[in-house]
Amino acid sequence: MNFLNDNMREELAKHFAKILQVMDKHEVDTLLVASNANIYYCSMRFFRGYVLLSKGKAPVWFVIRPTNVKPENDIIRIRKPEDIPAWMENNGYPSPSVFGLEKDDLTYSEICRLKKLFPDASLGDASKILREARMTKTDWELNEMRKDGIHHCAAYKRFTGVYREDMTDVEFQIELERILRIEGALGYSRTSGNLMEINLGSVINGDNADNPTPYDFSMGGAGVHPSLPVGANGTIMKPGTSVMVDMSGAFNGYQTDMTRVWRIGEVSGTAYKAHECSRHILRRLEEIGKPGVSCAELYEVAIQIAREEGLEDYFMGHRQKAPFIGHGVGIQLNEMPVLTPRSRDILQEGMTLAIEPKFVIPGVGAVGVENTYVVRSNGLENLTPYPEEMADLFR
Amino acid sequence: MNFLNDNMREELAKHFAKILQVMDKHEVDTLLVASNANIYYCSMRFFRGYVLLSKGKAPVWFVIRPTNVKPENDIIRIRKPEDIPAWMENNGYPSPSVFGLEKDDLTYSEICRLKKLFPDASLGDASKILREARMTKTDWELNEMRKDGIHHCAAYKRFTGVYREDMTDVEFQIELERILRIEGALGYSRTSGNLMEINLGSVINGDNADNPTPYDFSMGGAGVHPSLPVGANGTIMKPGTSVMVDMSGAFNGYQTDMTRVWRIGEVSGTAYKAHECSRHILRRLEEIGKPGVSCAELYEVAIQIAREEGLEDYFMGHRQKAPFIGHGVGIQLNEMPVLTPRSRDILQEGMTLAIEPKFVIPGVGAVGVENTYVVRSNGLENLTPYPEEMADLFR
Repeated sequence: MNFLNDNMREELAKHFAKILQVMDKHEVDTLLVASNANIYYCSMRFFRGYVLLSKGKAPVWFVIRPTNVKPENDIIRIRKPEDIPAWMENNGYPSPSVFGLEKDDLTYSEICRLKKLFPDASLGDASKILREARMTKTDWELNEMRKDGIHHCAAYKRFTGVYREDMTDVEFQIELERILRIEGALGYSRTSGNLMEINLGSVINGDNADNPTPYDFSMGGAGVHPSLPVGANGTIMKPGTSVMVDMSGAFNGYQTDMTRVWRIGEVSGTAYKAHECSRHILRRLEEIGKPGVSCAELYEVAIQIAREEGLEDYFMGHRQKAPFIGHGVGIQLNEMPVLTPRSRDILQEGMTLAIEPKFVIPGVGAVGVENTYVVRSNGLENLTPYPEEMADLFR
Repeated sequence: MNFLNDNMREELAKHFAKILQVMDKHEVDTLLVASNANIYYCSMRFFRGYVLLSKGKAPVWFVIRPTNVKPENDIIRIRKPEDIPAWMENNGYPSPSVFGLEKDDLTYSEICRLKKLFPDASLGDASKILREARMTKTDWELNEMRKDGIHHCAAYKRFTGVYREDMTDVEFQIELERILRIEGALGYSRTSGNLMEINLGSVINGDNADNPTPYDFSMGGAGVHPSLPVGANGTIMKPGTSVMVDMSGAFNGYQTDMTRVWRIGEVSGTAYKAHECSRHILRRLEEIGKPGVSCAELYEVAIQIAREEGLEDYFMGHRQKAPFIGHGVGIQLNEMPVLTPRSRDILQEGMTLAIEPKFVIPGVGAVGVENTYVVRSNGLENLTPYPEEMADLFR
């Protein structure tokens, strides 16, 4: 198996340049990357093992599995992480002074084991460094996400075709999952943290939107079982309600995030108004979302528009509210930055943002639109261009 | 929201009795449970928060989200884990001497934060304690898994109906996923560790079975993208090959694990022989798998049968081999014990085991059967009774 080719090495050099810059800022001289998402960022493939970044030295891939990887100068087959220090010593790699490990991504046991490789080094946080480096995307990464967006929209286009009268939300979601998989969705979406147990996304109909969830998703839903209390709950989709579809766009190691809403027959005027308000917010943020603007400001502008239209009570949930209106997205569904009032992050060119101003209208359901954007010098570029009107699922 | 009813409390008392017994053995006096799978084991629901077990005191649930949980004596709404020590002091709960946290389930950062709640306590390992307590199942848990097995078999019965000539393995898998979801699969399967990224299971056709994977699954497969290198790879399913279907049975917070194999037309004599050998192994283990027998012995008996039939080279993989023939299963797909030659675990009544003696036959594919069993006083009870013959997918 050819582990890395020249094109991959060229792209990875850009990732490493960004990581090394952040390492410098945090005064970490050596990084050992091991979590699944960061292994992918540092290798353009998933393997079991470690990527070593040592300041002033070439990156090294230590591979435990698969067993058919062909060793090269910088691609080293190992049996266990304890093999790494001897290799480094034999190959002129300095012993770490500040040794960065992924404190937010690896378990306590894993970090304790890896710390012992260099007992004299102090421990740095690789999670923070990788989050910061991954916050802006390279042209290649943006292109992967652009492809995700194209597939994502192509799947959404076919969603209305599988609706049948008196279907449950779960039955509808099953058909949407199938469409996404046929369109090429990999069937697994990487998330960060323990509070995002999800597969291919969520469908929320009617008042189920107002059922709070313990998870970190923007919208709730009771789910069908107390072991997985989020999303569709078996509601029969009735006229007068909305159906919010927030399904995954994970087609290639990266992903886009996208929400559209359909109505069943006519819904209340407040629901229409709130859905249009979500679109006003997006149009406004598309204009002002430029490098240098703060994430907190995007949040404030959004909630101010909701407030002016008298819709604040329904904004980002009703009984339980989500404390953000958007988030970074890329290899993982939830990346940096997060669009919260307390964020200190500033928009930079090449950031990717899923922006999701949503409302929960009692008696109707959830409404609003979510698109995935790239921050460009002149505003936001939409990676998920697809009609945003709340169309009738019947027709 | 009614968090716990009397039936739940009665069942949970059995879980806590087992946990407290293992805590005693490991000399841990206080446990704070936070990982998703263990929260479910200690609550029969998932929520964001913590379950406190303090020796000689009643268990306490500290709930952060959802926000609509009604507080009771032992159901306490908190904003953050730092609220816990004051509550304990005010309610006569002793300060921990050995404080057990889930070292193998929580991140380094999470444990470091929770450790600070009781800076004077020494740190115990809650992961080990919960794994050991969860290794044997209560009657209620077994009944949940029995229901999983019934749904699992009902789904498998419909799998052949969606096969079409010249379909790819991915196209076939998509239809199986849909059948499972319609049968009630929740759409998410909890696993332990970072090396099991999976959604609803795996379909492996022909020589793709011999592609090594970096993951901890028993069988490999290249996958369709380097970011997720496992399982179906887009192979067109041709006559003369086998199709191994190892799809998830996660219907209710617990799960069963089950594999069946179909052939397309006729396959080689070695493939038939190996498939029948897998069934011989299962029949033999069903007889000898009683309380008191060691997990290592089950492995040795299995590999000895494969050896006697001249099939050792193909057993549990060909180019890359899995070092086990089975594993515990329950809330997570991979629980204790593991059936390896080095295991020190001894079978106990009420353990649940997925046993999967499999073979990879070059030119044909993977063959073999996997069932989920309960260890009973007189042998193994099969929770996934379904015809095991390698039938023709064409007919």
